[in-house]
Amino acid sequence: MSFKLTILGTSSALPTTKRYTSAHVLNVHERFFLVDCGEATQVQLRRNKIRFSKLDYIFISHLHGDHFYGIFGLISTFALLGRTKPLHLFAHPKLENIINTVLGSEVPPFKIEYHALEYDKENKILDLKHLEVYSFPLKHRTQTCGFLFKEKEKLPNIKKEKILEYNLSITEIIAIKNGSGLTLESGELIKNEQLVIPPKRPRSYAYLSDTKYSDKYAPLLQQVDLLYHEATFDASKSKMAKKTGHSTAEDAANFAQLTNAKKLLMGHLSARYNDVKLHEKEAQKIFKNATFVNDNDTFTIKN
Amino acid sequence: MSFKLTILGTSSALPTTKRYTSAHVLNVHERFFLVDCGEATQVQLRRNKIRFSKLDYIFISHLHGDHFYGIFGLISTFALLGRTKPLHLFAHPKLENIINTVLGSEVPPFKIEYHALEYDKENKILDLKHLEVYSFPLKHRTQTCGFLFKEKEKLPNIKKEKILEYNLSITEIIAIKNGSGLTLESGELIKNEQLVIPPKRPRSYAYLSDTKYSDKYAPLLQQVDLLYHEATFDASKSKMAKKTGHSTAEDAANFAQLTNAKKLLMGHLSARYNDVKLHEKEAQKIFKNATFVNDNDTFTIKN
Repeated sequence: MSFKLTILGTSSALPTTKRYTSAHVLNVHERFFLVDCGEATQVQLRRNKIRFSKLDYIFISHLHGDHFYGIFGLISTFALLGRTKPLHLFAHPKLENIINTVLGSEVPPFKIEYHALEYDKENKILDLKHLEVYSFPLKHRTQTCGFLFKEKEKLPNIKKEKILEYNLSITEIIAIKNGSGLTLESGELIKNEQLVIPPKRPRSYAYLSDTKYSDKYAPLLQQVDLLYHEATFDASKSKMAKKTGHSTAEDAANFAQLTNAKKLLMGHLSARYNDVKLHEKEAQKIFKNATFVNDNDTFTIKN
Repeated sequence: MSFKLTILGTSSALPTTKRYTSAHVLNVHERFFLVDCGEATQVQLRRNKIRFSKLDYIFISHLHGDHFYGIFGLISTFALLGRTKPLHLFAHPKLENIINTVLGSEVPPFKIEYHALEYDKENKILDLKHLEVYSFPLKHRTQTCGFLFKEKEKLPNIKKEKILEYNLSITEIIAIKNGSGLTLESGELIKNEQLVIPPKRPRSYAYLSDTKYSDKYAPLLQQVDLLYHEATFDASKSKMAKKTGHSTAEDAANFAQLTNAKKLLMGHLSARYNDVKLHEKEAQKIFKNATFVNDNDTFTIKN
């Protein structure tokens, strides 16, 4: 079962010929979840061969242009391709009026289900069969949310040979999957852990852009597999980072350490930098498994 | 003095990884004039090393997304780069409200001067020192204008040796530049054409996208150097072209012939085509100097 992140854009406000503005797409079991939608996201989706028909959920962190100006073209393209099924859009409540104004009389042939984000606390905003999505407030110049995508805990599988050995009934199987042991006719108790294979570890990905450093939601994000944290600036620009509601590479690394993340992905590079060597050096001093991402990078978490 | 057209996007409604949506930029004497602004136009401008600071005039043919969804990002980028001088935007009057809604509280630090296009007749919409711009209605599904960019006729230059030979005064020079001959003290008349070098031929470029075939404005566009005419479809799709308010390659070629254009540039390719061989073959049977343009093509007209 796939759990693969594709980075579509890694620039901060100004796109360049090498870095588009913010957008990520997460493939969870071949369903696609788009996080932010900077200008030309639809072209980047095509470039990465993401099938539009498998994209039903879009999450917009905040209403700065570099995070949502691609939504109009993407919706138009969905319409031109004849989409009929609903599109779920999790965003600031103002986005609905903005989209309606831009599209004007070009009303799409599918329903856009708007889900208004809240900015005061963490919320579970989506609950699917295999996946949960949480939003949580970030500290930026405008109302902004981060997102946590987390596979659901699975029940353990029963060892096949035990089913045969003890001729288990459906009722017994359900009880054992939910943690019971098994009492034989002889009165002997077989412990649960002897009967089951532990479930595969749930995988997770968190997206934090744009934000100042804040430890507030570190508990929610403990041991996240892929922690994306913006790192617009290097350490020498920490005052500017604070002033503009952004982070340095050190901020991102400190947050990765605090959450015991498996891997830190940095992004949202200020256009003033020609490369990311300094960002990576500064981050890796604090948190070793840190990398600055490039457009079209992919990260697969196996289980 | 430069007169150079750069093609930024050549796709119709759906952008692909090879063709962005519609945008052209015309360099007239190192001032840049942007015509349409599909998504990611700002990235294409960067790719072609067009200096944003020399771009003061934008012309939007109509309010279908593939012709204007890049305007929001471009305005935001101008703002981030600290632009203070006004930006002139020639477009449908509805665009002002759309832009204000999308930008929200992110009001740019420069004035956007909106110039509403009219859709009932041709109009001179801009009159600069060296250049005139005309709009004229096209036949599409929504109110749409084409644009004609035309260098102004220059006065002839006086041959240097004649200034010395006849010791011409400023008053005489002005009169000769405006067509007078010269009467010497002897009573001899020197004809104007013996005194002057004819001015360089004014160069011109016309943009027609999106439109059905129409001969109505052919007189305005006579002998245009660069005629851009959309050619969304090949001849086999002529019914669909008419139905959707678009043209075939043959339509574009017929219009080029009617206007005695120097060169026909076709664009706005439907995403159904993998290449443009058929379009070029069909057009060239009617009008030989026809080409289907690609993103980042440039065309320079010398004088």
